[in-house]
Amino acid sequence: MKATVFIEPGKVEVHEVKKPIIKRTTDAIIKVVRASVCGSDLWFFRGISQRATNTLVGHEAIGIVEQVGEDVHNIAVGDFVIVPFTHGCGHCVACLAGFDGNCLNQKESGGSGYQAEYIRFQNADWALVKIPGEPADYNNEQLNSFVTLADVMATGYHAAKTAEVSKDDTVVVMGDGAVGLCGVISAKLLGAKRIIIMSRHEDRQNLAKEFGATDIVEERGQRAVDQVMTLTGNGADAVLECVGTAEAVEIAIQLGRPGAIVGRVGVPQKSDMNTNNLFWKNIGLRGGIASVTTYDKNLLLKAVLNNEINPGKVFTKKFNIDDVQFAYEAMDNREAIKSLLIVNE
Amino acid sequence: MKATVFIEPGKVEVHEVKKPIIKRTTDAIIKVVRASVCGSDLWFFRGISQRATNTLVGHEAIGIVEQVGEDVHNIAVGDFVIVPFTHGCGHCVACLAGFDGNCLNQKESGGSGYQAEYIRFQNADWALVKIPGEPADYNNEQLNSFVTLADVMATGYHAAKTAEVSKDDTVVVMGDGAVGLCGVISAKLLGAKRIIIMSRHEDRQNLAKEFGATDIVEERGQRAVDQVMTLTGNGADAVLECVGTAEAVEIAIQLGRPGAIVGRVGVPQKSDMNTNNLFWKNIGLRGGIASVTTYDKNLLLKAVLNNEINPGKVFTKKFNIDDVQFAYEAMDNREAIKSLLIVNE
Repeated sequence: MKATVFIEPGKVEVHEVKKPIIKRTTDAIIKVVRASVCGSDLWFFRGISQRATNTLVGHEAIGIVEQVGEDVHNIAVGDFVIVPFTHGCGHCVACLAGFDGNCLNQKESGGSGYQAEYIRFQNADWALVKIPGEPADYNNEQLNSFVTLADVMATGYHAAKTAEVSKDDTVVVMGDGAVGLCGVISAKLLGAKRIIIMSRHEDRQNLAKEFGATDIVEERGQRAVDQVMTLTGNGADAVLECVGTAEAVEIAIQLGRPGAIVGRVGVPQKSDMNTNNLFWKNIGLRGGIASVTTYDKNLLLKAVLNNEINPGKVFTKKFNIDDVQFAYEAMDNREAIKSLLIVNE
Repeated sequence: MKATVFIEPGKVEVHEVKKPIIKRTTDAIIKVVRASVCGSDLWFFRGISQRATNTLVGHEAIGIVEQVGEDVHNIAVGDFVIVPFTHGCGHCVACLAGFDGNCLNQKESGGSGYQAEYIRFQNADWALVKIPGEPADYNNEQLNSFVTLADVMATGYHAAKTAEVSKDDTVVVMGDGAVGLCGVISAKLLGAKRIIIMSRHEDRQNLAKEFGATDIVEERGQRAVDQVMTLTGNGADAVLECVGTAEAVEIAIQLGRPGAIVGRVGVPQKSDMNTNNLFWKNIGLRGGIASVTTYDKNLLLKAVLNNEINPGKVFTKKFNIDDVQFAYEAMDNREAIKSLLIVNE
C-alpha cells in the first residue's frame, strides 16, 4: 500500500509498504478515505523536533473499517469512522474521567501512519467514532469536517473546555492555525460573547471572523498583552493557548483576569516557567492531549451533522496522497491553513 | 494601644503604638476580640522571608466595629465581624468572578497589624463579614472557628474549590498545618469519599482523622508518590497543595490521575518548574490567594453556625496578646498546631 514516510527535514515521500495486519484482538484495520497534515507534523518537517528517518507519519483520517479483531464488538466491517489520533479504551480511570487522550490501556505510543491507504488502529472498540451512513451521503465540506474531528477540532475544543469557557465569557485565542481557529469555533459553541484572536494573516483573520471571532489582535509579545488589556479592561475570562512555545504560555498567563484559566493545547516545546505569576493572580493552567473520542461522541459529531459547526473550512488546499510533499510545503509556506489528502476516494 | 511588632527573626514584641484612625471613607476601625498566628507568619519569624523591623504583624482576627467611614453602609458600629486578610470591594471584575483575594480596588497591600487591639480595615463595606449577635452568644470553640474564617479555613477551602473537588472524589491533602487540616474539612464538605493527608505528626494526624481524613501518608518525596499510587491505583482526583515549597508543588503534580487539578494555596517560595509534566498528563494547576469574603458569606459562616464544621479545633494553644512571643514559639517548635491570641475579651 501507499504510505507517507518521513525522509529528512523538508522531505516526505510516498513509499510502497506492507499493508498493516491485526496484531491484537482489540485492533481494527481502516481503509483511509481522507487524511490530512497537522500543524504538529511541521515540527519534524521543519527539523524542530527529532524524528527517525523512514518512519510512517500522519495522525488524522476518516475511513472505512476493513477488518476487526475478535474483541471488537461496537465497530463492524464496513463502518464509516473518524480515526482519532488517540486510542481510549473507554473504561480506565482516565477515560472514565473524560481524558481518553491519556488512556492508561493504550499499549503503544499514539496514532501514526494515517497519511496512508490503510491504518492499524489500537483500542478500536471504544476509540473509533462511527459516522452514520457512508461517505457518499455527505458533501465535500462535511467530509472535511469529519477529518478535523480526528484531531484539530477536538483539540481546539479541549483548549476551550479546559479553560472552562462558559456563557457570555470574553475569550482570547492564541494561535491562528487550524487548532486556534477550531478554538474560536469551540468558544462560540460554549457561549462566549466576545472572542479575541491573535492573528496577523488576512486569510486566517477572515476565517476566524466567519467562525465567530469578534476582535483581532495583530500585535505580539508585551504589545499584544497591552492591547488585550485595552480591549477587555482587566483581562479575559479564559485564554486558549494553541501555539505551544514557551513564550506563548508566558504571554497567555498575562492575558487573563484574576481567576481566569489558560487552556493549553499547543505541544510544549520548552519546560521551565515561573509559576508564581499564576499564583498571585489565581490564574489556572490546564490542558494537554485532547479527549478526541469523548468530545466527538458527546457533541462534536452531532454539531457537524447538524451543520452547527463547519470546521472543515480550515482545509484551504487539497492534494492527492501522491503529492503529499506539496501538501506539507503548502502549510510550511503558509499557503494553506491546512492541507487535505485524498486517499481512497 | 497594644500591637505586635516584628523585631528580628525569632523575635516579636508587644509595643504601645498609636491607635489607628479612619483614612479613607471606605475604612472601618475594628476593636479586636481574638486574633491568631498564621503559618505564613513563621516565614518572617524564621527569617525565610524578609520583613522590615518594627512593622506591625498579623492578619487573622474577629472583633467589634468601633467606627466606620462615611461610605460604609452595610456595616455599622457595634457589629461583630470576621476580619479577613483580604479586602474585596465586591464590585470589580475579580470580586464579581469570585476572586476577592485579587480585588482590583484594594488601595494598599493586604491585611497587616491584626495581632493588636485595633485594626484599620480597607473596603469595609463589602469585605467584612458580619456574625449574628455578639461574642457572648457563642462558646469558645465557635469563637475560635470564626477566627479561622479570617484566613486558614477560607484558604483550605480555596485549595479544595480550585482543585474542583466534587462528590465521591479521592483527594490528597499535602500539608498538615492549619491550612492543610482546613483543606481536609473542605474536601469533606464538598463530598470527597476518600481523603488522604500527608502527615508525620500524631496530633495532626488525629485531628485530620476527626475532620474526615481516611488515610495517612507519612512518607515524603518519591516514596510518598509511590504510596499514594498504591492507595489510589492511578492517582487522586484532586490534590490540595498547602505547603508552598517548590518541592511540594513538584510532588503535587505527580499525585493526580490524568485530568486531575492541583489546588495550590501554599505561598510559593520558588518560581521555576517544569510545566510539561502538567501537559502530558492533563494535570491542572490552579489556586492562589483565597476568596475569604466570598466563601464566608456563601457557605463557611453558615457551616460554622450550624456546627457542621469545627475548624476552631486547629487552635491547640491559647495566649494573651502580651505573650505573643510564646504564641509564635509554640508554632515554630510545633508545640501548637495553631496559636490563638486573646485580645479584648
